Amino acid sequence: MTTPIILDCDPGNDDALGILVAAGHAGLDLKAVTTGAGHLSGDRTARNGAIAMAIAGRRGIPVAAGAMGPLVRERLIAGVLDQSSALDPERPDLPSVDLDRRNAADLICETVLSGAASTIVTTGPLTNLAMALRREPRLAGRIVRIVSLAGSWGLGNKTAAAEWNVLCDPEAAAIVFGAGIPLTLVPIDVGPQAGITDGLIADTEALGGTVGSFAAELLRSLVITFRPGIFSPAHMPLNDPIAVLLAADPALARTAPARVDVELAGKHTYGCTVIDFASRFGPANADIVVELDGDGIHHAFVAALGRLATTA
Amino acid sequence: MTTPIILDCDPGNDDALGILVAAGHAGLDLKAVTTGAGHLSGDRTARNGAIAMAIAGRRGIPVAAGAMGPLVRERLIAGVLDQSSALDPERPDLPSVDLDRRNAADLICETVLSGAASTIVTTGPLTNLAMALRREPRLAGRIVRIVSLAGSWGLGNKTAAAEWNVLCDPEAAAIVFGAGIPLTLVPIDVGPQAGITDGLIADTEALGGTVGSFAAELLRSLVITFRPGIFSPAHMPLNDPIAVLLAADPALARTAPARVDVELAGKHTYGCTVIDFASRFGPANADIVVELDGDGIHHAFVAALGRLATTA
Amino acid sequence: MTTPIILDCDPGNDDALGILVAAGHAGLDLKAVTTGAGHLSGDRTARNGAIAMAIAGRRGIPVAAGAMGPLVRERLIAGVLDQSSALDPERPDLPSVDLDRRNAADLICETVLSGAASTIVTTGPLTNLAMALRREPRLAGRIVRIVSLAGSWGLGNKTAAAEWNVLCDPEAAAIVFGAGIPLTLVPIDVGPQAGITDGLIADTEALGGTVGSFAAELLRSLVITFRPGIFSPAHMPLNDPIAVLLAADPALARTAPARVDVELAGKHTYGCTVIDFASRFGPANADIVVELDGDGIHHAFVAALGRLATTA
Amino acid sequence: MTTPIILDCDPGNDDALGILVAAGHAGLDLKAVTTGAGHLSGDRTARNGAIAMAIAGRRGIPVAAGAMGPLVRERLIAGVLDQSSALDPERPDLPSVDLDRRNAADLICETVLSGAASTIVTTGPLTNLAMALRREPRLAGRIVRIVSLAGSWGLGNKTAAAEWNVLCDPEAAAIVFGAGIPLTLVPIDVGPQAGITDGLIADTEALGGTVGSFAAELLRSLVITFRPGIFSPAHMPLNDPIAVLLAADPALARTAPARVDVELAGKHTYGCTVIDFASRFGPANADIVVELDGDGIHHAFVAALGRLATTA
Repeated sequence: MTTPIILDCDPGNDDALGILVAAGHAGLDLKAVTTGAGHLSGDRTARNGAIAMAIAGRRGIPVAAGAMGPLVRERLIAGVLDQSSALDPERPDLPSVDLDRRNAADLICETVLSGAASTIVTTGPLTNLAMALRREPRLAGRIVRIVSLAGSWGLGNKTAAAEWNVLCDPEAAAIVFGAGIPLTLVPIDVGPQAGITDGLIADTEALGGTVGSFAAELLRSLVITFRPGIFSPAHMPLNDPIAVLLAADPALARTAPARVDVELAGKHTYGCTVIDFASRFGPANADIVVELDGDGIHHAFVAALGRLATTA
Repeated sequence: MTTPIILDCDPGNDDALGILVAAGHAGLDLKAVTTGAGHLSGDRTARNGAIAMAIAGRRGIPVAAGAMGPLVRERLIAGVLDQSSALDPERPDLPSVDLDRRNAADLICETVLSGAASTIVTTGPLTNLAMALRREPRLAGRIVRIVSLAGSWGLGNKTAAAEWNVLCDPEAAAIVFGAGIPLTLVPIDVGPQAGITDGLIADTEALGGTVGSFAAELLRSLVITFRPGIFSPAHMPLNDPIAVLLAADPALARTAPARVDVELAGKHTYGCTVIDFASRFGPANADIVVELDGDGIHHAFVAALGRLATTA
Repeated sequence: MTTPIILDCDPGNDDALGILVAAGHAGLDLKAVTTGAGHLSGDRTARNGAIAMAIAGRRGIPVAAGAMGPLVRERLIAGVLDQSSALDPERPDLPSVDLDRRNAADLICETVLSGAASTIVTTGPLTNLAMALRREPRLAGRIVRIVSLAGSWGLGNKTAAAEWNVLCDPEAAAIVFGAGIPLTLVPIDVGPQAGITDGLIADTEALGGTVGSFAAELLRSLVITFRPGIFSPAHMPLNDPIAVLLAADPALARTAPARVDVELAGKHTYGCTVIDFASRFGPANADIVVELDGDGIHHAFVAALGRLATTA
Repeated sequence: MTTPIILDCDPGNDDALGILVAAGHAGLDLKAVTTGAGHLSGDRTARNGAIAMAIAGRRGIPVAAGAMGPLVRERLIAGVLDQSSALDPERPDLPSVDLDRRNAADLICETVLSGAASTIVTTGPLTNLAMALRREPRLAGRIVRIVSLAGSWGLGNKTAAAEWNVLCDPEAAAIVFGAGIPLTLVPIDVGPQAGITDGLIADTEALGGTVGSFAAELLRSLVITFRPGIFSPAHMPLNDPIAVLLAADPALARTAPARVDVELAGKHTYGCTVIDFASRFGPANADIVVELDGDGIHHAFVAALGRLATTA
């Protein structure tokens, strides 16, 4: 039994790892990759997504570009997060790729309404999914679950109040979180429980082949951007692949129900996800990941890449 | 010389009058009618738009349904504004109609990008146009002018702070007003300068035929909803048709440049259009209609319907 | 029968005229003048208030300094409004004055709780009155009426959304408007109905004496600051003295009940007074002046100054 | 060397413990207790504060009532937090007390400007201190340090976004945090590192006498209100006394500089303290307690009460 999924992302090296895991995982059937603007412009994320799929040996799966920026707010510039890209366009060894001609929101609508996939994993801003939900009112009733790497209940990572994926497009996040669709939220608070250890890099590299060395390179590029703070963990969190792995195996996390709202009106808190475990602000609309099985994620990550290394 | 236009609206009897004027005006070439949710649900506005086009004798022009609700906020219920509809579905004498199968936002994109029309008139919430702008980044550069019946610099009409079309979807209005496209705004403050007088109704009825009697019935239905307030004018404003008429003949109004922003964060002012003639909040992004030629509008309105009555 | 009042203001030449009118009006018994920061710093407004009282020949009435800035927000700098002050400290002919040693908020509390006055007229930001209300919970129940020159239902005068006195301290205005005290609001929208005409200046000058020439000088200084806008009236509004005159004679205005809220959360509308004549936002909490008897105000203004010119 | 302090609080059993510690600590010289509204009405907190002082045997130190509610917002009702009060007025064994006749804000101003104390500890809403700062512009320059139990960087305790003391009066907190005074903030995030253990209660009870049994009773009453949540610690945090103890001995905590802002405009986050360790929102204005010496606090707490038990 595999779970058919759509992966909506903004690659970015962390998303590229998520793509590899989604392409390789034995429990997932990746039906489409859709990309939007985030760390990088919408043009670059689409191309990067297609490159990751090509390296994964999955050229047959459509990769479609979508949002070139957020719905309402001005586009954020990532700054330091954008440095050190293993998918940098200047690298001559990257494969040439083609994109699906459909708009990302259309591809999401078609894939879900046709019944090909009813689980959506997101590891970037939620613009494409919000556009799809507004374009096609029947969509919400056909999606069985969304698994999103988004938000925080504690400190944010872009500002003290806001997590990057939500801050990039708070209105889109509000649309998605408010759509009445079962939602598993992977907030950055739990990220440190599944870090990019030296062991993880070594195990990845040991897979060998294009996939092993490419994935290890991506992991190393992420570690370089790690900026320890007051409460920082020992290791850079693995982040995006975690959401993909949880879509395949919910047992890798412990969750708690909560009400999640996105602050759209604050002066200092615009884009803040208010995760209310007491559901004082309204009925619970999400299952919040509150604990991760770090070892399980480590093993599942390597296993998924290992299948690619074998088959690609 | 005629100006090709797209009319985006939410009929509604006032919008239906706008459709008739757009279909009949000698200076306009109506290329498409797109509808969204507003006074009525998105299903009913689409059907009503098609009925108005059928009565106008313009069945060949596409009418496409779009937004079923606003982008981000919950849908407003119009209440009293929804009463007394001349387009009520229970009326057995209304023609049966077909809708274009495309989504309204797609039809806007295609019509503009194909070069068929580059002026857009809006008489409803701005959801469809906002969706189109976000879907197709090239669109903004190809639209030559938007003429919108929207906003107010003084008291609103739905709340003290907000005008109905903007309040229905403030985020969409913010997207459209901020798109860098030349914008003529017809705020409700000037509406009283072009009212539905007994003379206007009589002149309309005197046109005869289906169009004359249908339009007169629409006018009467609007007068019934008129609720005089503290500063109310003698007559119900003509509203939606004004925006259509100004797209054909800008000389019917005097305008002043201003900075227009939509308040998205206020507790009491959410959906307020801040029309800043001093441009203290930023550079001017709109030409605000500050004075109407009431007689000219009266005559142009009757003339446009008269052409329909003759040709339909 | 005279009405005992406290005048809370921020002189400023317009407030100084209000002080003269309050001191001279046959129907008013001025018990105290309290000053806060506004156009000018709190030090200068207090001194200016005392100067105006000295010129009025009313040195026995206490003038007390209060707020040196707003409650919560940063202090606004008036800019052009501050130019051309007839009370400028460099003028050698101004009398030397002493201030009451009490804090303005304390003087308000004592004057009201002692029963000496139960009507308060405000022509500046509402900081002092808000501080008094928060300091002394019994105060609200002892004030019979507040007459405030504050707010607008249409365009503001400092920004498109906000009127100066409210914008200077929106939280203070919210406290005062929400205190459950009968409130007459004189919004700037009606100001043009009582303008500083050449005739008013001539009639004032004709009173002769120190008061006549000083008041005429103040009027001329205000006319100089007049900046005609899109919808500007023929004459600079008289403003502050209007509120004083209405405290003496409510028949000089027509009012309508409304709900008044101050927007404290908006991005573009912070400090906006939402005047809701339909009371959709809550029960009416103010009588809004919607029409002025311009001639009556002209005559009452000159008559009040005339009594000073005779007695001073 | 002792540090003279003013303690501003809203007793409340947790504040009453803070008062006992402030009265008894060898390193502190308690000059005044001021009370405002919070858990309980302003009348009850003042009386409770005086009772605690009487039990401490310190009737000579003034206790003054102040704010009866917050500056701008409506008063919050505490609900469950108000249950089980060891200071309940129905208890016949509580001493009768007198309050200082001055207003709390005045007492703060006088005590600081006279040089009697320049450190202020707050364990309740910040209304009194904000009122004092606005009443007396010289005050900010004369306060050497504020130590506040207030705010959170993670989940709040009253709502998911806001901590109780700040939420009770967010504008007051904004005034205090923005006053340019050195500020040590004890956010609730660190509270679990100093909990009310069975050992603490036993050590307190073992002190004997009125103080020992009263303090133990207070501790037990707080434990009863403890509601374990998703991430709850093993023990109810000691809370208010921590701030008092840190004023005496900063070495009991590790701090980090941060920018602290209070959200005054959010829909879901009104009253949220945004604690920005990266100081992206502005320069650091507070030292945030990020780690507590739990054992040290335990011992210092018992030692302070022990001095009271001996001397009272």
